[in-house]
Parts: sequence; C-alpha cells; structure tokens
Amino acid sequence: MGIEDAIKIYGAKINDLLKELIPPGRKDYLSDPIWHHLHTGGKRVRPAICLITCEALGGNPDNAVHFALAVEIMHNMFLMHDDIEDGDTMRRDQPTVWVKYGIANAVNAGDYLLACAYKSILASPVSVEKKVQLLQVFTLTYGKTVEGQALDINARAAEGFTVDKYMEMVELKTGCYLACGMVGGAIASGASDQVVEKIWTLGKTMGPAFQIRDDLIDLTQGKGRGGVIGSDIKEGKASFLYSYVLQVANADDKRQLHLIMSKARDDTTDSDIKVVLDIYKKYHAMAYAQDYADGLIKQAYKTIDEIPVENKTIFKEIASFMANRMS
Amino acid sequence: MGIEDAIKIYGAKINDLLKELIPPGRKDYLSDPIWHHLHTGGKRVRPAICLITCEALGGNPDNAVHFALAVEIMHNMFLMHDDIEDGDTMRRDQPTVWVKYGIANAVNAGDYLLACAYKSILASPVSVEKKVQLLQVFTLTYGKTVEGQALDINARAAEGFTVDKYMEMVELKTGCYLACGMVGGAIASGASDQVVEKIWTLGKTMGPAFQIRDDLIDLTQGKGRGGVIGSDIKEGKASFLYSYVLQVANADDKRQLHLIMSKARDDTTDSDIKVVLDIYKKYHAMAYAQDYADGLIKQAYKTIDEIPVENKTIFKEIASFMANRMS
Repeated sequence: MGIEDAIKIYGAKINDLLKELIPPGRKDYLSDPIWHHLHTGGKRVRPAICLITCEALGGNPDNAVHFALAVEIMHNMFLMHDDIEDGDTMRRDQPTVWVKYGIANAVNAGDYLLACAYKSILASPVSVEKKVQLLQVFTLTYGKTVEGQALDINARAAEGFTVDKYMEMVELKTGCYLACGMVGGAIASGASDQVVEKIWTLGKTMGPAFQIRDDLIDLTQGKGRGGVIGSDIKEGKASFLYSYVLQVANADDKRQLHLIMSKARDDTTDSDIKVVLDIYKKYHAMAYAQDYADGLIKQAYKTIDEIPVENKTIFKEIASFMANRMS
Repeated sequence: MGIEDAIKIYGAKINDLLKELIPPGRKDYLSDPIWHHLHTGGKRVRPAICLITCEALGGNPDNAVHFALAVEIMHNMFLMHDDIEDGDTMRRDQPTVWVKYGIANAVNAGDYLLACAYKSILASPVSVEKKVQLLQVFTLTYGKTVEGQALDINARAAEGFTVDKYMEMVELKTGCYLACGMVGGAIASGASDQVVEKIWTLGKTMGPAFQIRDDLIDLTQGKGRGGVIGSDIKEGKASFLYSYVLQVANADDKRQLHLIMSKARDDTTDSDIKVVLDIYKKYHAMAYAQDYADGLIKQAYKTIDEIPVENKTIFKEIASFMANRMS
C-alpha cells in the first residue's frame, strides 16, 4: 500500500478507534473539548506511518494499531497544551480548546488524552515483553518532547538563539516524536534491534526537516490559524529562520528583529511582520532554510540505505512524502 | 515498622530518588519549577503507604519503590496542574508554580512529571508481567483522577450539586488515587488477586474520608495557603459541606450560598465567608461531615476484616492514621 492510500485507509481506522476510546457527546467536560479539538482536522499521518512501517517490515498492523492510536493521541494532547502555552487562540479557523472551554478544562482534557494513550498501548495484542518495549518508546518520546517544549517556551524572543540550539530543540520536540511511530511499528512487527536503531536515526533526521518546513509555511501561506501569515513572529517563536538570522545579521537588524519578536502578540503590527520578513529576505533565510531541510532529507535517504532490510520502498516513500510536503 | 516511622524513613528514601530522577538545579525550565513545587512540602505519605503495604504482605519494598515514587510524582503533577486550574496563587505560603514561572512552564513541567512517573515504573526490578500490571493500575488511577477533576472543575458553584455527586467526584479524584499506592504495593509483593481487589475497595473508602477531612480543615485551620480560612469558598469549590447544605437548606439560604460561591475569587469578601460559615453552622454541616467521614472509616475497618491475609495490623494503622488526621 502506498503512503497516500495508507493515510486514507488507516486514517479512517484511527478515527473509528478514537471514537471507541473517547466516545463523543458524553458531555463530561472531557469528550466535548477533546472532540472539538479533534474535529479541527488532522490527517492522522503519524499513525499511518506507524502502521505502514509495521506492514512493510512483514508485521501484522493489528499488532501496531494501539500504539499508532497512542501516537496520534499524544500528538493531539501536545497541540492542546501547546495552544495554552503559546496563547494561540485559533487552530484551523476554529477557536482553540482553552478559548472555548477555559484553561482549566483545556489542561485537564490534555491530561486525559495522555491517560487514553497509555490505555491504548496497554491494550495492544502483543506479548508483555513487546508491550513494555512499546511503553518505553512512548514514554521516552513523550518525555523528550516535553523537554523540547521547555526549550521552545523559553526560547521565545531569546537573544542568543542559534541554529544549533534550534536543532537541539526540534530534535527533542519533533524528531523523537516522528521517529516514535515508525519505531513502534517496527517493534510491533518483530524487527531486529539493528533495524529499530536505524529507524530512530531516520525519524530524528526527518522530524527537524518537517519542522523547518512548518516554519517556512508560516511565512508563505500561514498555518490555517485564520490564514494569518507570520503567526510565529507574533508569538516570538524561535523558528529556524529566526535562529539563522540572529547568527548572521548585522547588529542593527538583530536589534530590530529582537525588538519585534519580544513584543506581545497583540502589539505586533502587520508592518512589524513585514519588517521581519524583509530582514529574513535580506539574509536569504528562506532559501537557506529550504537548503538545510533538503540536506536533512538527503541524510535521511542515506540512513534508509543503511537499514538492514531488503525492501526499503516504504521508507523512501515516507521520506519523499515529507520532502514533497516541504515544497 | 509503624506508619509514622515508615513515613520518616521511606519519605527520605523517596526524596533521594526524586533527586536522582529529576536532578535539581539543571536550570532547564523543568527541574527549577518542579523543585520549587517539591520544596513547598509534602510528607511523601502516599509512597510510604505503598511501601509498608508491600512489606506487610511479605514483599520486598525494593520491588515497590519505583511505583511508590511514581505515585508521589503523579500526586505532585496533579497539584501543579490543579493550582493552574483552580487559579490558586499560594501553596504552603509559597507562590504556586504558575505564578512564579508562568502558566506555560507550569503546564509543561506538570507534563514532564508524568513522563518521570512512567519512567520510574518502567525501571521497576519486577517481572514484565508485574510491570504491565503496575502500569495498568497507574494508568487507570491517573485517568480516573482526571475524570474526577473534570467533575470538580465544572462543579464550581454548581446549583444542583448533591452529596451523591460529591461522592462520585471524590471517589474518582481521591479514592482511586489513594488506593493506587496500596494496590501497587500489594502487586509488587506478589499478593493474590483477591487481596488486591479488597485493597482497591479499602482505598476507595478511605480516599473520600480523607477528602472530607480536607474540606473541613479548610474551614477550621486553612490549608496553609497563607493560612487563609475558607479558600474553598473563595474558589467556589464544591466541597462536602457545600453539597450537603445545597440539599438540606431552605430556598433563601441556598440562593445566598450560591450567590457567594459564584463570585470571582477576588470579589469574595471576608464577610461573605462568614455568611457561608454561618449557613453551614445553621445546618450542622460540619458535624454531619465529620459523622459521614467517621462512617466511611468504619466501612474501611469492615473491608480490612475481609482482606484474606492473616496480619491486618498495617491496614488498621493506615486507617487509623487517616482517621486521626481527621480529628
């Protein structure tokens, strides 16, 4: 099965399982905010990648589906808490959970999602040994993502931010996270430790590539948060472009950039965003970001060559899927 | 070992393990807020109860200590998130984490604690079967506590609140939670399913008793949040007393009670608190609450009689410890 088909078929399966695990309309202040959030979209790409990895390695996707579901749930839990942490009021043209249901319910509903994720893995039809392995991968990823988020929160409008620090942050926050689904799929398939190890490396390369693309999208087409361009600039978010320009710009540009990034969201004007975009353009930051991401994708292909399995088609498809979404 | 000694000895052990798992002073926006919170106190009663249960059932406490640590971590994670959800600014005369480090770091540090809790259980020196069992108990408890918290958040100043609804809420929020440590200790000791089952029941009875006591303490000596009496009234928190009086009071008293409980925290005056206290006194709510808690403790002793083990001393000690703290 190709990746696009997998997303369609497995995405529908994951949606069904989500409804089973968290029945909508229970009106218990948990399922309402959770389903409000889940309806803001999401193609369930992460669980699909988990399941095709399992399948490609000769495993039965039924053994990986509980883990795949857990990955999707964790992803949404982080989105829900991140929206609070970032003060984001809109997600895909809908009010975020904390705006609609209050901060208390948004924190608590996110906490509930994590319980659902663990419940799901614990229900996996695999041996206890594999179950513990899956729980270990999940817990490691969850913890690293939170560590990355800690760096992210406190890097907002940071003066001494660099590309290296950016990479450390996104390797924690996005890399581990993307690898997690593939690694879980591999473990559920019964793959060897060597295969699992290479897949960790692969995910950790593709994750940052994916994140840099996300940073670029914010500057070109907006992230669907009301279609606004430059939402990261308003937030003072430490994007790849920001970290790069802070390294290469002259003192005046740096000062101006830092000044605008430090402003409160509502104080950042459209002309502020234009100033930042102009500074980014002056240093060819967008082109540099695209090149950097392309380099990561190349590295990913090299890692794929090293995975000790015969059929590498699906890994190439996953990498190409990520690369194309980047263009 | 008696319970007071156990709290001292095991409490120190748990503090050491906390420092190993979350090294203080890493200044990474995770250990700082977490240790600020951990230093606000806590006698580590919950892990001590876990460990003496394991010991009393003939087990090696070393097998339960990772679980005990996880229970303590979960407890603190909930306190950290609850303080955000309740808008509490002080805990044991110190600013709460969200006040000192901001909501973003407080949400994220709480999330990190949960990762640490799971990491701890996964490191337990027990068989994979037992590890999965411990993870199941922990996840069940974590989920139920969040469900209870959802009821709690949305019961604030609720008009139709009853003692039954209160009990449903605290059985989820406090009962499961207190049982969890004892159940984990029993599992780690290798106790039979019958013993584990009875211990669940015991915890679920003692938890609400403990919570009712907490509600009473808020009205008599304050909860150490700057020594203020009636913090639950300011919050509009659905306490046992509130739920009882809503059931038995006349229409005028109900209206007045509801009016004050609905006020924003800062709008609730000292004379408002006095009015509520007078209404509680008029309906002998404090005495009723004490009787109700005593009844639960009696029920707990009955459950202890039914635990199919020979030596029940430690369970009686635990129950008596809870009952005495209640006086």
